[in-house]
Amino acid sequence: MEIDFQKSVGLVPAIIQDERTGDVLMLGFMNRESLTETQRVREVVFFSRSRNKLWKKGESSGHVLQVREIRVDCDADALLVRVEPVGPGVCHEGYRSCFFRALGADGDTKVIAERTFEPEKVYGQEKAR
Amino acid sequence: MEIDFQKSVGLVPAIIQDERTGDVLMLGFMNRESLTETQRVREVVFFSRSRNKLWKKGESSGHVLQVREIRVDCDADALLVRVEPVGPGVCHEGYRSCFFRALGADGDTKVIAERTFEPEKVYGQEKAR
Repeated sequence: MEIDFQKSVGLVPAIIQDERTGDVLMLGFMNRESLTETQRVREVVFFSRSRNKLWKKGESSGHVLQVREIRVDCDADALLVRVEPVGPGVCHEGYRSCFFRALGADGDTKVIAERTFEPEKVYGQEKAR
Repeated sequence: MEIDFQKSVGLVPAIIQDERTGDVLMLGFMNRESLTETQRVREVVFFSRSRNKLWKKGESSGHVLQVREIRVDCDADALLVRVEPVGPGVCHEGYRSCFFRALGADGDTKVIAERTFEPEKVYGQEKAR
């Protein structure tokens, strides 16, 4: 089964899910090269749309995502990567999951999770991920 | 907090997660109008990239996705919609989740879930979702 990278300019969305808890941690994008690299090193490697290059999650923080299983959807245009996360969280704002805000009916958002680490100590002054 | 629809031609990826089991059921895309409609009717309404129009999940099958909570990620460019799914499954191939295949190191995929319904009986002859 061929992954369909063509539907969205060479990229497929990759959902990252904690295998133990079921929590959805983040969503990134992969191109063919980053998927191959992810499979080779068994740690998640995205394609960064803003930096236009491969981006190994945790390369600066050490919070890598160890791959346990990769699933493909019916149309082969989305991936679900089930991982064991290393460290206290994946979000550059200091949370376990990037989905730490709930959206209200009025469009306002509300933080619904506790911070698990101080991002300044992990990433220094730059907003690196 | 404004959802960032501009990063990807007016669309954001929306991960659909079963609130009770934690299973990731599918991934779709929403534009601003489909998100507004989803919030209004409290059932998931995507924007179909192939049909270029709003697409209420379950409009033909009756397998709607009742919205329990919508979460936003740190960059406000991805949504996590926690739902209570109605019916035996969301996938037009007859599975509870669209992510019913695992990807092997060799690129081959393997079905890892049981069928929960017969798609022909639900959708008729057309591949409708």
